[in-house]
Amino acid sequence: MPELRKDPIVGRWVIISTERGKRPSDFTGTEKRKEPRSCPFCPGNESLTPPEIVALRDQGTRPNTPGWRLRVISNKYPALKIEGDLNREAEGMFDRMNGIGAHEVVIETPDHYKDLVDLEVGEITQVMFAKRDRMADLKRDMRFKYVMVFKNQGEAAGASLEHSHSQLIATPVVPKRVQEEIEGSQKYFNYKERCVFCDIIRQELGSGIRVVAESEDFAAVTPFASRFPFEIWLLPKKHESNFLNISDRLMEEYSRLLKTVLTKLKLALSDPPYNYVLHTDTLSTIAREQYHWHLEIIPKLSRVAGFEWGTGFYINPVSPEDASAYLREIETK
Amino acid sequence: MPELRKDPIVGRWVIISTERGKRPSDFTGTEKRKEPRSCPFCPGNESLTPPEIVALRDQGTRPNTPGWRLRVISNKYPALKIEGDLNREAEGMFDRMNGIGAHEVVIETPDHYKDLVDLEVGEITQVMFAKRDRMADLKRDMRFKYVMVFKNQGEAAGASLEHSHSQLIATPVVPKRVQEEIEGSQKYFNYKERCVFCDIIRQELGSGIRVVAESEDFAAVTPFASRFPFEIWLLPKKHESNFLNISDRLMEEYSRLLKTVLTKLKLALSDPPYNYVLHTDTLSTIAREQYHWHLEIIPKLSRVAGFEWGTGFYINPVSPEDASAYLREIETK
Repeated sequence: MPELRKDPIVGRWVIISTERGKRPSDFTGTEKRKEPRSCPFCPGNESLTPPEIVALRDQGTRPNTPGWRLRVISNKYPALKIEGDLNREAEGMFDRMNGIGAHEVVIETPDHYKDLVDLEVGEITQVMFAKRDRMADLKRDMRFKYVMVFKNQGEAAGASLEHSHSQLIATPVVPKRVQEEIEGSQKYFNYKERCVFCDIIRQELGSGIRVVAESEDFAAVTPFASRFPFEIWLLPKKHESNFLNISDRLMEEYSRLLKTVLTKLKLALSDPPYNYVLHTDTLSTIAREQYHWHLEIIPKLSRVAGFEWGTGFYINPVSPEDASAYLREIETK
Repeated sequence: MPELRKDPIVGRWVIISTERGKRPSDFTGTEKRKEPRSCPFCPGNESLTPPEIVALRDQGTRPNTPGWRLRVISNKYPALKIEGDLNREAEGMFDRMNGIGAHEVVIETPDHYKDLVDLEVGEITQVMFAKRDRMADLKRDMRFKYVMVFKNQGEAAGASLEHSHSQLIATPVVPKRVQEEIEGSQKYFNYKERCVFCDIIRQELGSGIRVVAESEDFAAVTPFASRFPFEIWLLPKKHESNFLNISDRLMEEYSRLLKTVLTKLKLALSDPPYNYVLHTDTLSTIAREQYHWHLEIIPKLSRVAGFEWGTGFYINPVSPEDASAYLREIETK
């Protein structure tokens, strides 16, 4: 059974999931590239994955057979288990609970050779709807406090399968980074009575120096204190703390701007590996004045040195102003 | 001029150092392995590095010529610059200051083919003394609040040169992770009137289940909430917040235990790349009841997926109990 464990010093929870792991002797620091021909995410191989939770299918096709345009399945090697009680308990001074949670995979296209960026805006919109709907469903499980939504694109970014997919992990704890953001934005709100993200958007759109792209309702910017080269945040211009509240119209606009940004990254940086992570409010909060959902996109360009892990102190070799200027110039049509 | 920038949401400072960077078009996600034969850290190539700050030399040899056993130099491509004023200023709602700091390199041995683990205990002790002495010297510069001491071993761990070396970065801000640790341990102290690290050491030595190795005055443990497989912390058993206060006798014992731990890692995991980061108190604090210096060692075994960056939520595929049991068994003689 995997476990959640809390660092007693900084309050960080981690999952201890030995079932995902190999024997210690299997760890040698090298990783093999997967063979595309045996891809479990390709049509015809549905039996190689856990059964689908939902799918977008051609009329008349049966679940777990070909004929789908998008499939959501449970992760075959989940970091957390869906069944059981949390059983919070102590080990001396330490706190632990069972690793209860959900770990799902969205297979974004049946085409093995298409990445998210290659899909039509309508198809990307369907991927985003699938995520929102899964989040809304997982929210009904009262054990869960948060759903992390993220994508690892490319082997260097942590993707173990090449076929385009993204993931959801529902957890009974709020991730540390999100908690920090909520607390930090609360402090700002206490002082200013304004949302810090709204203030950032206002200033960035005013100066334009870190704007990568924008649409009527969304802005893509390289953040002032970017940790990584070409780090990009995609934010709704109008205040909204929870991604779950997004309207159908905005979802399409959001997907369109995401495609634009990913296309710019692909053209500018030779199709880099990247990660994106959705930052949204906790499941129990419907709306909050001081928090603001956004998507963080981080191309995997520089190797992160050890002291960055150890100190939380990053060295970024490209200024966000240079990065956004470079990306602004890239024509996506 | 590089800049320090503070994320207005979570308070994280980063260095924006465009001079280290290349043009945006140079970033493509691939890195070349360095050629050992042109190593600037090898004896005879002293003119390829900035002049030495200190060195351990054979009698009668001149600075910046061969005949040294250990050399400390300024980093040729420093992340921070030593000259100038901090010039704290605003850009609208954002805060910035000049990237003032020191960035030094300790060349740990003249032998290109020896790693730290291959050195004699006496030689490792000299490396540690060199770091302590550089920290003590940098502390005299009142602009600096912290000195980060770390090592990147192996290309996958971020080392850009193969020749064994470690680094010091002095900064005018306290790194976020250290600040969090100090605040977290303060909270614990407020509640318990005990140092949280002392309590951890007491419990770990009592149970033994996460002890990798120990000596009279030091313990090496895999932390309860390890973020990474085979993550190891090396701590002094007796309370001490600041590495700068370490005695000569303890420095040798510390170096001996470090060699034991690194040897275990080398034998157990086929000479893995790794990072270590020293966590010690801020420069202005001589002693503090609630903080406790320690060294964090993180072998680079698993690729970190994007959501871990984005959420501060880690999945560790090896339990610390399994890791320490495995390492305990490894004979180092």
